[in-house]
Amino acid sequence: MSDGPNETLERFLSVQGGIPFFAALGASMVEAVPGRSVMRLPYAPHLIGNPDTGVVHGGAITGLLDHACGMAVSSGVEAERPNSLYGMRGLATLDLRIDYLRAAKPGADIFVVGECIRVTPRIAFARGRAYQESEEAPIALATGAFMITEPRTG
Amino acid sequence: MSDGPNETLERFLSVQGGIPFFAALGASMVEAVPGRSVMRLPYAPHLIGNPDTGVVHGGAITGLLDHACGMAVSSGVEAERPNSLYGMRGLATLDLRIDYLRAAKPGADIFVVGECIRVTPRIAFARGRAYQESEEAPIALATGAFMITEPRTG
Amino acid sequence: MSDGPNETLERFLSVQGGIPFFAALGASMVEAVPGRSVMRLPYAPHLIGNPDTGVVHGGAITGLLDHACGMAVSSGVEAERPNSLYGMRGLATLDLRIDYLRAAKPGADIFVVGECIRVTPRIAFARGRAYQESEEAPIALATGAFMITEPRTG
Amino acid sequence: MSDGPNETLERFLSVQGGIPFFAALGASMVEAVPGRSVMRLPYAPHLIGNPDTGVVHGGAITGLLDHACGMAVSSGVEAERPNSLYGMRGLATLDLRIDYLRAAKPGADIFVVGECIRVTPRIAFARGRAYQESEEAPIALATGAFMITEPRTG
Repeated sequence: MSDGPNETLERFLSVQGGIPFFAALGASMVEAVPGRSVMRLPYAPHLIGNPDTGVVHGGAITGLLDHACGMAVSSGVEAERPNSLYGMRGLATLDLRIDYLRAAKPGADIFVVGECIRVTPRIAFARGRAYQESEEAPIALATGAFMITEPRTG
Repeated sequence: MSDGPNETLERFLSVQGGIPFFAALGASMVEAVPGRSVMRLPYAPHLIGNPDTGVVHGGAITGLLDHACGMAVSSGVEAERPNSLYGMRGLATLDLRIDYLRAAKPGADIFVVGECIRVTPRIAFARGRAYQESEEAPIALATGAFMITEPRTG
Repeated sequence: MSDGPNETLERFLSVQGGIPFFAALGASMVEAVPGRSVMRLPYAPHLIGNPDTGVVHGGAITGLLDHACGMAVSSGVEAERPNSLYGMRGLATLDLRIDYLRAAKPGADIFVVGECIRVTPRIAFARGRAYQESEEAPIALATGAFMITEPRTG
Repeated sequence: MSDGPNETLERFLSVQGGIPFFAALGASMVEAVPGRSVMRLPYAPHLIGNPDTGVVHGGAITGLLDHACGMAVSSGVEAERPNSLYGMRGLATLDLRIDYLRAAKPGADIFVVGECIRVTPRIAFARGRAYQESEEAPIALATGAFMITEPRTG
């Protein structure tokens, strides 16, 4: 690994700040270490999917799970093969499955965790989960496969 | 069926207008008939996932595929069992799988189609796809299972 | 819970012995406790998918992951709501996703674990994994949703 | 394409005859053209998953869907890039999702169709379905991603 968690976090934080969709959701980074990323999605009116109940739209959670898994894979690949990627460039989501285990509670923040579970030369796999009060009571679980498209040979 | 495509469309359009997350994405309804819904996501800066390339974030497409599949299921269930649901209330996404077949082209609108393929008493299944120029060259495909949670017995 | 792990195991073992597909694969039960089941698939010529390499067909592993997840859900539901199911009757697989992380090694047994991770009134979710030498180096991961179709009210 | 459907069929038939797991299921080839394969699984006692109802085990259908999708991808890649693969060597299932839409009827044969829907340099995608009486009333649908691992440069 070419740098420690703090440098990885700093680099990722600076990259994240520049991702418009991430900013538009209103999400922020909580933790970023090689192979793992944690984000916070504060409850906000523009995320609501059901005006009657105030529940956040599943699509907002899904979008952030995709992002968190991609970040975890990106830093996981970087840790195993330094300089093969930079940030999330060179990475493409192949597929993603989301399981919704329980409804999100209106008014409470949502935390989203992505973890890289396996890196092969061309493909990497990640798992993710979204929760509110406790990581043991997830709202949603995710599994995804990512293609490493542009290994840098610098 | 208690009403024709036009009334379904009108009702859905009025419901969609009131969904904050849908509005925040900047999406609009193109077609809504029982068991099928088509939406348009105009290219916009706040949807970008990669500032270097200008490509829309996969999470925005995923979020809209989730929504389009849910709407198709909702109207499909309504068509088979009138008044058992109203709009998308009483429907919960159980799980969703997205396959990303090709990268979205920056600058072009994205169309998202949801289709209800099977309704059982408690569960309904949908398929979706996202495309730009041609429906035959999809950016992404989706499959989802939905739970019909609150059948109305009015 | 109406009975302890041993009785659950005994009951499941007797049920498994009577499932022809399970017997045809040549699989055997290793562990069966509420919400968890472990099976062993001994390496055998009739399971081979690639005659050149001798690698077991992914379909055999997939089939057993489906079965192990179903069993885990069945015993998990039984533990939470005694007598609502018997064995695996009253349970239907809604969907299943398998991720293949690495190739199985020819000649070695495969272990398959299923775990029930969430039970709701009508739906239950499971995760599974298949491995050879170490549970930490899985060949395949599974996620599935199951419908509880015939709750018994005895 | 280096050969027509008949030669592809002949080649695949000869390869299939040598796949032990395919033979053990009792399946046979119905159709094999570039990018598409159809198989028949005759109803048989050793495939039963529920001795009370005689219903075929979902795992047997899942296993054959995996196989049919893999074959479709293999012949689809071969059609686009002749001699880059031979049979199913050089192809690995990355992941597979199966949706079970209705129960299989005991006593009736099951047909399984695989179709290659997209080939990229390293990854190919397939869709599959299993049915009994009518292809319009599928028992199960499948989506899978496959990695092209060993392109031959002959």
